[in-house]
Amino acid sequence: MLIKEKVKQAKDLLKEFDVDCWVTFTRESAINGDPVLTFLVGAPVTWHSAFMITRDGRTQAIVGKYDQITVQEIGAYDEVIGYVEGVKGPLQAFMKEVNPATIAINYSEDSEICDGLTHGMYLTLKSMLDEIGMGERLMSAEPIVSALRERKSPTELEAIRQAIAHTQYIFERVTQFIAPGKTEKEIAAFMLAEVKNRGLETAWESAVCPSVFTGPETAEAHYGPTDRPVKPGHVLNMDFGVKVNGYCSDMQRTFYVMESGEDTVPIEVQKGFDTIVQAIEKSRRAMKPGVIGLDIDTVARDIVTQNGYDPFPHGLGHQVGRYAHDGTALLGPAWEKYAQKPFKPLEPKMVFTLEPRLTIPNRGVATIEEMVVVTDQGAEFLSTPQTELILIR
Amino acid sequence: MLIKEKVKQAKDLLKEFDVDCWVTFTRESAINGDPVLTFLVGAPVTWHSAFMITRDGRTQAIVGKYDQITVQEIGAYDEVIGYVEGVKGPLQAFMKEVNPATIAINYSEDSEICDGLTHGMYLTLKSMLDEIGMGERLMSAEPIVSALRERKSPTELEAIRQAIAHTQYIFERVTQFIAPGKTEKEIAAFMLAEVKNRGLETAWESAVCPSVFTGPETAEAHYGPTDRPVKPGHVLNMDFGVKVNGYCSDMQRTFYVMESGEDTVPIEVQKGFDTIVQAIEKSRRAMKPGVIGLDIDTVARDIVTQNGYDPFPHGLGHQVGRYAHDGTALLGPAWEKYAQKPFKPLEPKMVFTLEPRLTIPNRGVATIEEMVVVTDQGAEFLSTPQTELILIR
Repeated sequence: MLIKEKVKQAKDLLKEFDVDCWVTFTRESAINGDPVLTFLVGAPVTWHSAFMITRDGRTQAIVGKYDQITVQEIGAYDEVIGYVEGVKGPLQAFMKEVNPATIAINYSEDSEICDGLTHGMYLTLKSMLDEIGMGERLMSAEPIVSALRERKSPTELEAIRQAIAHTQYIFERVTQFIAPGKTEKEIAAFMLAEVKNRGLETAWESAVCPSVFTGPETAEAHYGPTDRPVKPGHVLNMDFGVKVNGYCSDMQRTFYVMESGEDTVPIEVQKGFDTIVQAIEKSRRAMKPGVIGLDIDTVARDIVTQNGYDPFPHGLGHQVGRYAHDGTALLGPAWEKYAQKPFKPLEPKMVFTLEPRLTIPNRGVATIEEMVVVTDQGAEFLSTPQTELILIR
Repeated sequence: MLIKEKVKQAKDLLKEFDVDCWVTFTRESAINGDPVLTFLVGAPVTWHSAFMITRDGRTQAIVGKYDQITVQEIGAYDEVIGYVEGVKGPLQAFMKEVNPATIAINYSEDSEICDGLTHGMYLTLKSMLDEIGMGERLMSAEPIVSALRERKSPTELEAIRQAIAHTQYIFERVTQFIAPGKTEKEIAAFMLAEVKNRGLETAWESAVCPSVFTGPETAEAHYGPTDRPVKPGHVLNMDFGVKVNGYCSDMQRTFYVMESGEDTVPIEVQKGFDTIVQAIEKSRRAMKPGVIGLDIDTVARDIVTQNGYDPFPHGLGHQVGRYAHDGTALLGPAWEKYAQKPFKPLEPKMVFTLEPRLTIPNRGVATIEEMVVVTDQGAEFLSTPQTELILIR
């Protein structure tokens, strides 16, 4: 069903982006398949395989003989050719018949999610097309693949909402579990048991999902939970998400562990937390179609630095979809590693995280990660935003 | 431990293949990471990351700041640099210092397992190296990556032996379960329950592992089990494997379902089965270091066709490792889709499958898949070869 929807969407995108033919060319997808394959074929393919969609709506798949029936049964392709010896003959025959002026293929320097074609496969495809005088017609399919992933359908949005709801519920459950003396590993294990009990999968590798960081001496991010125990006076944060029907959530929450006898949160902890809440709310309000991600990142970054904290060493937010990090447009600074991603305009139906962070000296890291969807006029929270520190007593 | 072993092995391979520097360049490995990363870093990496090994044994990793501690803790790299804005500065600095005459990168038209560099990442790396006058020094790392994967260490061979032992035991267990009336899906479910009970993973996607094909009207291969019931007179085959410590088995077995009152196997079934057994034994005996895979495929293929059957539409055997299909050298015919793989000479410590097949009209498909390891003088079975039809009564 997803595949039929996406193949249909792709036909419209070829018209919108003025491309005659889009080719996804891949092999041994269990080893290094193109991430767009989920939208084009639900099963693994083995030998050189080509999935072609043309501007006038024609579709053809060329696959190894043993994969033919599986791809036929998807029902998304007008024709499915199964070969024994090689893909070149049928691929050249199709191209000669269609004679496209532009042939879009899945590579991109800017966007990893649009960069599913390996260099070896590029060379093979290029030489097949050179033989029939079409090698110079190749172009990047980045706009097509980006739009396919970024413009979420109602079904996709609903799956993300479900994933968020499960995530928030598990955050509530673990709040009852966290206590001084419990280790990061014990907290993570509690959450993974919740994931398992609900028949869910984590949104990324479970060794770092959830990530749990307690106190001032942690690794900050992208690091597995340790035997470090929760102590009174710690700021604790977690990064966590689950998958529902193949779609992810990605959220962070900040906790404060009260010291005995303490009846209010220390002012420096409250100020750090409030700065994060404000950075999220102000940047969300600045989001709307047509604005570029760089400008949204700047809103949050300025709030953090104007309050006297170091700027966070990552973008404010990324898109979310079938991967926790998905899509091309990014809310981020103009750093080399982000290439052109921060300069892409926002579009309705894009789902972003907002995740500023700052360090509270001697306490830990304050960070919240909310999820929002871009609408026609602005951006709405998909998650229920955290506006108060979660207190552990 | 694996990573330290493989990084050490890689240093020797650079000398053997006369390469000054090997660079693995990747990003967002959860999305489309290089398959060689398992040997270089055990955890996912997020931003543009480069893992460099030089001929004189120097090692450096350049990764995004948040991945730095994880990579440092592996202990395999002399230096781990964590950047915030971009990889280019540190990468160019390293290259200028080392000044390698040859820079091997992970692309290959011939071998999917050596083709982990995406085309977009190739363009990025090429332009970084062009800026410092080194863009023309790039070459394929196929010989290095192939040898790393293909020359199995004692630890790797032991994991494969364990995976084979579990697979054979599950084949024995399911033999008691198969009976007329049981469907392909029920048989597969029984086997998957065995996998789960033992805390194992299947060697490839569980929707088609095991594959179960009963009778004359099946999809032949690469297709999930159906509601088709086992019937007397059917030839039934299965393709199945598990993973132990990250290493796979990949095996097939053939069964015959006796008809009531039948006291011997029909001659055409026995002849088909015996042809497969003979093709495996003769081709195994022909294997030894230095022989090319094409010649081994021919031995088995000729036996099948000389007995009056159609040639099988795939290679006789592939290598096995961390993936069920692994390595470069292949026992296969000189077909386009196999590129140069059938022309690579066999080497000691390579692990191959032998899997000829043929169709027995009105009965089903006879196919056995054994696993062998190349030795200094020949090739030895790792699996206990099937020499008799498994009879279901």
